[in-house]
Amino acid sequence: MDQTTMKAVVYHGPGDISLDDVPVPQIIEPDDIIVRVTTSTICGTDIHIQHGGLPAVQPGTIIGHEFCGEVVEIGPAVTNVKVGDQCAISCVTSCGQCFYCRRGEYSQCETGSWIFGYLIDGCQAEFVRVPHANMGVYVIPEDLEDEDVLFVGDILSTGFYGAQNAEIKPGDTVAVFGAGPVGMCAMATAKLWGPACIIAVDTNQDRLDVCLREGIADVAFNPATQNVVEEIKKITDARGADCTIEAVGVTPTYEMAINSVRNAGTVSIIGVFEKPQELKMDELWIRNIKIHMGLVKTDQIPALIKLIQTGKLNMRFLQTHSAPLADILEGYDVFGNKKDNCLKWIVK
Amino acid sequence: MDQTTMKAVVYHGPGDISLDDVPVPQIIEPDDIIVRVTTSTICGTDIHIQHGGLPAVQPGTIIGHEFCGEVVEIGPAVTNVKVGDQCAISCVTSCGQCFYCRRGEYSQCETGSWIFGYLIDGCQAEFVRVPHANMGVYVIPEDLEDEDVLFVGDILSTGFYGAQNAEIKPGDTVAVFGAGPVGMCAMATAKLWGPACIIAVDTNQDRLDVCLREGIADVAFNPATQNVVEEIKKITDARGADCTIEAVGVTPTYEMAINSVRNAGTVSIIGVFEKPQELKMDELWIRNIKIHMGLVKTDQIPALIKLIQTGKLNMRFLQTHSAPLADILEGYDVFGNKKDNCLKWIVK
Amino acid sequence: MDQTTMKAVVYHGPGDISLDDVPVPQIIEPDDIIVRVTTSTICGTDIHIQHGGLPAVQPGTIIGHEFCGEVVEIGPAVTNVKVGDQCAISCVTSCGQCFYCRRGEYSQCETGSWIFGYLIDGCQAEFVRVPHANMGVYVIPEDLEDEDVLFVGDILSTGFYGAQNAEIKPGDTVAVFGAGPVGMCAMATAKLWGPACIIAVDTNQDRLDVCLREGIADVAFNPATQNVVEEIKKITDARGADCTIEAVGVTPTYEMAINSVRNAGTVSIIGVFEKPQELKMDELWIRNIKIHMGLVKTDQIPALIKLIQTGKLNMRFLQTHSAPLADILEGYDVFGNKKDNCLKWIVK
Amino acid sequence: MDQTTMKAVVYHGPGDISLDDVPVPQIIEPDDIIVRVTTSTICGTDIHIQHGGLPAVQPGTIIGHEFCGEVVEIGPAVTNVKVGDQCAISCVTSCGQCFYCRRGEYSQCETGSWIFGYLIDGCQAEFVRVPHANMGVYVIPEDLEDEDVLFVGDILSTGFYGAQNAEIKPGDTVAVFGAGPVGMCAMATAKLWGPACIIAVDTNQDRLDVCLREGIADVAFNPATQNVVEEIKKITDARGADCTIEAVGVTPTYEMAINSVRNAGTVSIIGVFEKPQELKMDELWIRNIKIHMGLVKTDQIPALIKLIQTGKLNMRFLQTHSAPLADILEGYDVFGNKKDNCLKWIVK
Repeated sequence: MDQTTMKAVVYHGPGDISLDDVPVPQIIEPDDIIVRVTTSTICGTDIHIQHGGLPAVQPGTIIGHEFCGEVVEIGPAVTNVKVGDQCAISCVTSCGQCFYCRRGEYSQCETGSWIFGYLIDGCQAEFVRVPHANMGVYVIPEDLEDEDVLFVGDILSTGFYGAQNAEIKPGDTVAVFGAGPVGMCAMATAKLWGPACIIAVDTNQDRLDVCLREGIADVAFNPATQNVVEEIKKITDARGADCTIEAVGVTPTYEMAINSVRNAGTVSIIGVFEKPQELKMDELWIRNIKIHMGLVKTDQIPALIKLIQTGKLNMRFLQTHSAPLADILEGYDVFGNKKDNCLKWIVK
Repeated sequence: MDQTTMKAVVYHGPGDISLDDVPVPQIIEPDDIIVRVTTSTICGTDIHIQHGGLPAVQPGTIIGHEFCGEVVEIGPAVTNVKVGDQCAISCVTSCGQCFYCRRGEYSQCETGSWIFGYLIDGCQAEFVRVPHANMGVYVIPEDLEDEDVLFVGDILSTGFYGAQNAEIKPGDTVAVFGAGPVGMCAMATAKLWGPACIIAVDTNQDRLDVCLREGIADVAFNPATQNVVEEIKKITDARGADCTIEAVGVTPTYEMAINSVRNAGTVSIIGVFEKPQELKMDELWIRNIKIHMGLVKTDQIPALIKLIQTGKLNMRFLQTHSAPLADILEGYDVFGNKKDNCLKWIVK
Repeated sequence: MDQTTMKAVVYHGPGDISLDDVPVPQIIEPDDIIVRVTTSTICGTDIHIQHGGLPAVQPGTIIGHEFCGEVVEIGPAVTNVKVGDQCAISCVTSCGQCFYCRRGEYSQCETGSWIFGYLIDGCQAEFVRVPHANMGVYVIPEDLEDEDVLFVGDILSTGFYGAQNAEIKPGDTVAVFGAGPVGMCAMATAKLWGPACIIAVDTNQDRLDVCLREGIADVAFNPATQNVVEEIKKITDARGADCTIEAVGVTPTYEMAINSVRNAGTVSIIGVFEKPQELKMDELWIRNIKIHMGLVKTDQIPALIKLIQTGKLNMRFLQTHSAPLADILEGYDVFGNKKDNCLKWIVK
Repeated sequence: MDQTTMKAVVYHGPGDISLDDVPVPQIIEPDDIIVRVTTSTICGTDIHIQHGGLPAVQPGTIIGHEFCGEVVEIGPAVTNVKVGDQCAISCVTSCGQCFYCRRGEYSQCETGSWIFGYLIDGCQAEFVRVPHANMGVYVIPEDLEDEDVLFVGDILSTGFYGAQNAEIKPGDTVAVFGAGPVGMCAMATAKLWGPACIIAVDTNQDRLDVCLREGIADVAFNPATQNVVEEIKKITDARGADCTIEAVGVTPTYEMAINSVRNAGTVSIIGVFEKPQELKMDELWIRNIKIHMGLVKTDQIPALIKLIQTGKLNMRFLQTHSAPLADILEGYDVFGNKKDNCLKWIVK
């Protein structure tokens, strides 16, 4: 590769990001690869980072972690892909061999976890270094393009993980709190466990309408105008939903997720929280509920790609806005402030 | 109830069934109910019985075990339904309280299991006695009719059990051997676990066409013209299907189900076998496969009804033929001999 | 039965219990039995009730819910036991047939759950009515006596449920917070899932010594003198315990249970809480932990009895004090105030 | 390493093995290591190979696959161990990153599986090359020696896998067919799931006596003098064992394992079979049993080592014979022909 500098979105401190010229990344470990980013996105977590909400991010870090790209260089221990492969890439890095990876807890990998655009340089750039490439890099099938599989690396896997953690069984009623892109991905993948009814909950009526129109929810409730817990009980024989998924990370959705689950049900939390919450153990100890939480695993990317390939999953409707890397700061404004009904801002 | 005799299909010995006048059944145990049969079917197992293939059936037994009906009398310990309720009824009787029922193994209930039209009188009659009515009787929701839920009591639950036992995971490839009514129910319910691809296998091309047309299979293979094991390997990176379901009960389908599953995959057997089979342990010991088998549990009838109610499942296309009880012997001929593309013969 | 009145411990209001003469109970439902109480206990929850901590208890209620006894009368729908049987009895009542029982969630039974000595009359009496006797009543094997199986009906099942909910795997490290009778039962039953190390945590050194002496814990830590979270990390490669069990119901044990579990581990809560707790979602969302809680199921009583019978479980060491019903108010003082190293007060 | 040739047991064809001088192995792949074998064993499978029973073994192959040793050289991608580490080593090689490894099916690893002393050179030698060393090599804790952990690499993991596949639940009755070293390991590890009763079955009374004396079985039955299926039913309320484990690989044990399991129970097969068996589907289809089979995973070696370290597992009693590599051909005679009550022949 002759190119030595590139454009990249660099975090300089709270509220301060800019599109800078920086050096092109190099291979460091034997299982690294270098990827030319062909498509990427702005994720809700990037907005948190921009605002300084994730203090672990060091000034100087290139942000971004949801992307596809072409392999341009591989380390000597890489066996999974070759130069020229067009790939979807996991936002979570994992080795496959440590204490946590052996337990299938890939998001807790001892030499990985979520690091892209957080602890190491990310993908809102022309090139990016991808560690542990034997695990997190997946060749895109010939009949698909970037836009088809763009979200498998982060939000679609996150939604899937939330749905998986909810322990949905055929015939269940599932309520998803938050109809943003992650919540929508949770609804779309919740269907993979055969629920009879998926309920979308959000105060943004436009987004609820999208959920119903796209067929990822059967019912929509709006807390701005409805007592959602009561509405859910009305359609579940007064018991509550079998499973609830929290996909925002704030108190109202957290409380609805716990208050609307039936006894012996499961609450799955995938929202990113900035504050502690109250756990009403005095009421809950006798209700036999389960609360599951955590960072996306992304180990099911091959399954998600197959489901996309056979037409069982399609999240392209989220791609409301698209522009080149040069315009990304506008994307931070439009996506970050939910202007213009933006669901996802694609960098192409 | 004033009526004291009724019409019923009585088994008299191998090859000998007739529509006889017999006494109306009476309540025996405190948790019995009497049901007026409003809709019933002929099941593949009834054909086995007719031919004398199930010697446990005593001459004089009324056959039939898949039905809906109206509750006309209840025993003193029945709390689940009341006289006048229109119900779907499980072909498997279970108490909910014995060693097996406590383990969720309802088909092995110590005072139940499959007995209707087998060890006690069945439902091809005007009335039928239903034991352990607190467990196996389900009120049909007002917005549904008999024909919507008719199969939940047997073949739809059997298909579901076969799919459940196959341990399907999202993105999997599932092959179903046998595209008769039970195999079709297995395909339709296999979708509840989110597979990427369902493969229908049968020598009857008409039935394969139905599977594709009704959207319960993604791919169809015909062993009459194709090497099915090879075809399955071609679309699964040479590994084989993640899960296979045997829904016939004969050697060719049994062998294909085992030979086309990938290493560490699961073979689920719901076919009713008349003969022992060969298990190639010399080849299989190193392949880490699981073989699951058994009689339908029917404990998921409420889930199936909810899925039907919300439009997620619809098996009415199986109801190719319908006629009153008076014509049922014709039904044994047409359905039993697969004449006229008959999938299910409904007694109405 | 000729006797018409009996002695019983009656709750009259906060701080006010007395041993009164009350009518002998009668059969009400067809699946009720009447039991002559031969052995019972005072449970920690009874102390809560005595103090008025469970306001659902109506004045006039007979308290007590852990007991063995002889069947003296059975209702017409009882098939499980006969008059004269000596039985261990579940503190949780369940029907086996409702929405929750079919899901194995017996403690949420729609016509049962925990009601003995709480919502209906309990067992600190000469006789007690036992509803849904086909489910919660277990004949004691001939080679065992009341004292062997006395705790299966409540605290041993509660400990078992806590251990089961902790999802222990062979080789795991399990920390149990609280070395009272319930915590000790959790430790003893945690062994049934093959952990490599069980850690007992309590501020009462005498009780920790009992745990080590009886072999139900491998290691003991005392928060009065040790930083328990740090000590646990020291023996788990700095990760934390794979599973933690909270068996008290107060903030310090709750916080230690969450802070000492490793990422992607499970926290099982069986303590009865009087107050809400803080859930530090801002730290936890990225740790992939599971929090499970709830009221004992007691469905494993037959398994526990078999384990006692084959010598694999023995909790008789908990029976530090024993006296007749006439002396039970002294028991409330001694057990309730943890005098005289009392672990359990037995009424014999 | 200066040494260029070494002693090794080489397979030359059916019935023909010898202790030869061969070249010392070299590192080939970046994640290989070279190990100086400090302790090894003869395994039952080696006897199969010696006799020519596994035709995939090429003449010229060094046999042996159960061993401990010291790391003497590491490839550039090895991060797990360093030169000088004393290690226990898995008989199954796995990468942690392929289709099967990601599913936890380590024995089906696409670039590994069981290859040592089978498809590549094994450990009955002074040195051995170990591929994929980041996964299958475990440093022995300082307080343990080779003999403590010698079997974790094969037979103890095989027994564990058999027990795990049997789906044992607390309180269950488990019958193990075959009381050889592998069967004994299955019994010892079956205890990790809390069964109430473990039954040892073998025609060799000496071995049954060892099982009872070492406390790995509660009951022993001898098919030479007893109707084992009937005896098992006698102690299980006529139902049969909840789980059975076949640990031999011949027809009589296979048939007993299937005939003595209760309905809805699980049969786990770890025996290595040379011939197909009959599967009585005509009887079994209605019994709801599960049959699981396969090659050991060895992913639980860290758990097994911890259990050994905390005294919960101890299989040293199997080490009845020990001798240097120079005497190994005598070992093949003594162990292979079960002379002198030999359970395991250790090469030291």
